[in-house]
Amino acid sequence: MTVTADQVRQLREQTGAGMMECKKALVESAGDFDKAVDVLRKSGVAKAEKRGDRAASEGLVEAYIHPGSRVGVLIEVNCETDFVARTPEFADLVRNLAMQVAAAGADYVRREDVPSERVAKEREIFAAQLEGQGKPAAILDKIVTGKLEKFFAEVCLLEQPYVRDDKVTIGDLVTAAASRTGENLVVRRFVRFRLGKD
Amino acid sequence: MTVTADQVRQLREQTGAGMMECKKALVESAGDFDKAVDVLRKSGVAKAEKRGDRAASEGLVEAYIHPGSRVGVLIEVNCETDFVARTPEFADLVRNLAMQVAAAGADYVRREDVPSERVAKEREIFAAQLEGQGKPAAILDKIVTGKLEKFFAEVCLLEQPYVRDDKVTIGDLVTAAASRTGENLVVRRFVRFRLGKD
Repeated sequence: MTVTADQVRQLREQTGAGMMECKKALVESAGDFDKAVDVLRKSGVAKAEKRGDRAASEGLVEAYIHPGSRVGVLIEVNCETDFVARTPEFADLVRNLAMQVAAAGADYVRREDVPSERVAKEREIFAAQLEGQGKPAAILDKIVTGKLEKFFAEVCLLEQPYVRDDKVTIGDLVTAAASRTGENLVVRRFVRFRLGKD
Repeated sequence: MTVTADQVRQLREQTGAGMMECKKALVESAGDFDKAVDVLRKSGVAKAEKRGDRAASEGLVEAYIHPGSRVGVLIEVNCETDFVARTPEFADLVRNLAMQVAAAGADYVRREDVPSERVAKEREIFAAQLEGQGKPAAILDKIVTGKLEKFFAEVCLLEQPYVRDDKVTIGDLVTAAASRTGENLVVRRFVRFRLGKD
């Protein structure tokens, strides 16, 4: 089947994927545009996950100062090449992440970064809250685990709902950008200052 | 003796001190302009030092991203009132401090913040460097103390020479601004990210 240059261009514009990838996806979907988008999204995300091993040592250090200068954020996001670091798409991602941290706060990048003592303490508090309600141990465990998940979604940046679109998490946002740029993207660190506070 | 409005204005422009202070200084110095400047500097600095007890909980959180976005700094500087926090002079100071940290780096705000283990370790290294040179203990001690002073001037922001004018230290810069704004100014904290590094 024949794929026109115009179809390829259109698919590129919508997905940000490479020209050859778009052509292949259109061939695979027999010219069905929406199916081709799905093909790209699937392979793109799959790639982003495999990509995790490659070194991400380029990127940007960016800041966001909230109007009024009472809250500020400094963030470092890594990618693999200086080329991607200089794209507007990557800069946008980094800016959005900095704004997310300013707006929602976060203590850690990912749940692996939460110290085990803090997790143990939260677990203890949740268990204490449920004490004396006569619930069976298996149910209690389930509730505590559920509360812990909620805790992680609050304190870990990558698990937070995106403040500008709460149907996606920050992790989704980063994965989608990784997929579009074709590189492994890593939020390395951030810090948030509140005037006179933490 | 009479002090002209013109003299007062000129003195204000040079020192940034208040109108009444300038008038008083000119009266005190019997109209001698340079003496009046000295009077103001002395009382100004004296005030800045007494001021240290008053609470500084207003201020600005500011960032500086070095062109290229590979080095970034987030800093919090406190003053006593929102009024001073909104002056261009205070904003300038904060911006200059952020640039200083980006350019020169620093591990601590002041020498009191350096952990005693780190001081002990530096002292040990300096002593080891001088070992076996047959110098008397009193001299050794003096040299080690001198080297430690140099170490503090490197790692403590307030003791560093200002990168834009190495005849003054950052501490001098802050004291002068405190004197001019009439408030206690405190560099509360800062953080510096280098892409892919510390």
